Amino acid sequence: MAEYNFIELAKNAKIASKKLATLSTDIKNKALLSIAEALDSNKSKIFEANKKDLDLAKDNVSPSVYNRLKLDENKMRDMIQGIIDVYELENPIGKVLLQRSLDTGLILTKTSCPIGVLGIIFEARPDVISQISALAIKSSNAVILKGGKESALTNTAIMEIIQSALNKVEGFPQNAITQVFSRDDVKEMLEQEKYIDLIIPRGGNNLVKFIKENTKIPVLGHADGICHIFTDESADLEKAKRIIIDAKTQYPSACNTVETLLIHKNFAHKTELLESLKESGVELNFSPDSWHIEYSDKILSVKEVESLEDAIEHINEFSSGHTESIITENRENAQIFISAVDSAGVYHNVSTRFADGFRYGFGAEVGISTNKTHARGPVGLEGLTIYKYSLQGNGDIVADYVEGKKKFNHKDLV
Amino acid sequence: MAEYNFIELAKNAKIASKKLATLSTDIKNKALLSIAEALDSNKSKIFEANKKDLDLAKDNVSPSVYNRLKLDENKMRDMIQGIIDVYELENPIGKVLLQRSLDTGLILTKTSCPIGVLGIIFEARPDVISQISALAIKSSNAVILKGGKESALTNTAIMEIIQSALNKVEGFPQNAITQVFSRDDVKEMLEQEKYIDLIIPRGGNNLVKFIKENTKIPVLGHADGICHIFTDESADLEKAKRIIIDAKTQYPSACNTVETLLIHKNFAHKTELLESLKESGVELNFSPDSWHIEYSDKILSVKEVESLEDAIEHINEFSSGHTESIITENRENAQIFISAVDSAGVYHNVSTRFADGFRYGFGAEVGISTNKTHARGPVGLEGLTIYKYSLQGNGDIVADYVEGKKKFNHKDLV
Repeated sequence: MAEYNFIELAKNAKIASKKLATLSTDIKNKALLSIAEALDSNKSKIFEANKKDLDLAKDNVSPSVYNRLKLDENKMRDMIQGIIDVYELENPIGKVLLQRSLDTGLILTKTSCPIGVLGIIFEARPDVISQISALAIKSSNAVILKGGKESALTNTAIMEIIQSALNKVEGFPQNAITQVFSRDDVKEMLEQEKYIDLIIPRGGNNLVKFIKENTKIPVLGHADGICHIFTDESADLEKAKRIIIDAKTQYPSACNTVETLLIHKNFAHKTELLESLKESGVELNFSPDSWHIEYSDKILSVKEVESLEDAIEHINEFSSGHTESIITENRENAQIFISAVDSAGVYHNVSTRFADGFRYGFGAEVGISTNKTHARGPVGLEGLTIYKYSLQGNGDIVADYVEGKKKFNHKDLV
Repeated sequence: MAEYNFIELAKNAKIASKKLATLSTDIKNKALLSIAEALDSNKSKIFEANKKDLDLAKDNVSPSVYNRLKLDENKMRDMIQGIIDVYELENPIGKVLLQRSLDTGLILTKTSCPIGVLGIIFEARPDVISQISALAIKSSNAVILKGGKESALTNTAIMEIIQSALNKVEGFPQNAITQVFSRDDVKEMLEQEKYIDLIIPRGGNNLVKFIKENTKIPVLGHADGICHIFTDESADLEKAKRIIIDAKTQYPSACNTVETLLIHKNFAHKTELLESLKESGVELNFSPDSWHIEYSDKILSVKEVESLEDAIEHINEFSSGHTESIITENRENAQIFISAVDSAGVYHNVSTRFADGFRYGFGAEVGISTNKTHARGPVGLEGLTIYKYSLQGNGDIVADYVEGKKKFNHKDLV
């Protein structure tokens, strides 16, 4: 029965997505405000549900999962503020990206439009629901959310509040935002190419890998976050210390944390640099087997390299394509590094931890992508859009151009 | 052995792609001119090889395949001109798409860059090799080409000329453009996610479907081209005749040919319209089973619809998302149609046959995509690019911002 149900639900989401595509900014913004208000005035219901989830999870999950699961006043405030932030962002839909006269009275327009139906699969964090729902609404996409079982009661409480808030907004379509629960639904979701246009996994390495390996639907995200810092021959020791310690210790389990440190063989302060890392509680691993490891902990692989080229080659071989940084006082080397390293983020004299949609000023973040198509790096609202071409004429036919009766005179108008 | 070889070749293409990424416009343009000149001065070799292919194919392929396979002076001139056209296009790599100051001295830059390694699988047309090679060079992507066996000798002759032309260009990397031959290589190609970043199939429906179903690598293209024209209540009869006859008969086997005609029940000239289609040699099919058929022939499915909404719903259900057109004198209806129909091209009073990169003024075309991510509609050079973010600072760390010592002041510079 679950099978039938999921397909119906996906089909309805697709129908809703067509209606969402033509919604005015005004209705979308009303929907966002309605959700923000409803969450604020129903906080107690959410905390109650969350307490039950926490009681059930207490003895079964790790402390870090427990913390991600737990909602408090601060997180709730951030959740609500997150919706207001999206409310304040410009409508990404209906933007004219190109307007070109192909011939007199024959006007081509490229306009941004939504992708369609998003499938979101996430782990313990219940705050993902409101964040992704807000981004989906603003970008006119329908969304089907599948959360972790640990937060099932919290998720349900939040979703009920969101649904009833949306029901109050005149003109907002039914079935635009829905939730599914079972493991079977994940399988179903990954198979519904006909109805689901993009899958966004939000969770650990294994979840993302599993999803990428089991669907033909485009997946936006990243599995590994194996980030590198290269300390060049001319690196400033103090900058190197600051940056590497920040990149490794400021939040060791983040995907933009550095995992491998490459040091130029002629860097004069190697010993001092490594000593200061150890003093900051960083364990160093010099084993050549370690270059593919994402520690998510205060451990750092270290390798000496012969040259800038050697460093670039190592990174292009072992990196997950997330974010890399060069520490150097040599501007030319920095330029070569930025141009030759094939990762979503390539930095100079900066911590890798800056790879983040909020820090980039995107206002909100869908996630970070290591894809080489569509969207790469931190993805904001724009990553949830695509475009269509409209062509307006007055009885224009191709035969006239093929037979030479008419000629194109492409002129950009916008 | 073929297995081992393909992986080596793909690995080498990946290495070449990293070098291509940093090539100057000058070297890329020299490479393009070198190829154009070499093809021009070695035409006779290509015609010889082509003659052998044609002799072998004569009794084994359909007339249309035979025609696509056959190279003559005209096609050769177009091939060479195609390379010159790409030479004249702006370099799509290294464009600054965004530059933003995150804080004093902390500058984020979003720059266009190549995707990496393209895998091209194409059928009989040998002119695809030079076209795709030119687009790959200009966009700094490496490419592995797999052509049809019918054109093996022609393809080999063209590829040898391209290779030797590239060898003469100082600074142009080895292994950037390679060709494979066997059916096993297609299988291998579809499995090499590590080395190949994007697959572009150029060929029939079945080829594209097979590829989409057998790879985890992103595929850019379209399988079906089920395009619709909706003749609205207020359509002008003469425009309707012109447009539909052009869209159905100007080149019936093209993907942007109309397959289904929807007619508003209150359109007063239905009989006259259908008569004129029949007079133009179009066979009409009124069967409700016909709505998913791509005829590639002078046959047209016809359906009466109740309303504009009914037409939009039919299209969003049965279309392959390629191109649709509304014929109407009602501007408001045209706007609703353009906004609500979810296809790559949505036209008003224009033939669907305009869906084409050259007609859109892209200068060259990789193909037409019905994808909902990355690139949609006719795809030019831009569709072969992605972007990376560079961040330049002076020892900046995230801890300062998390601890409130510093604040972001996002300011767009470009």
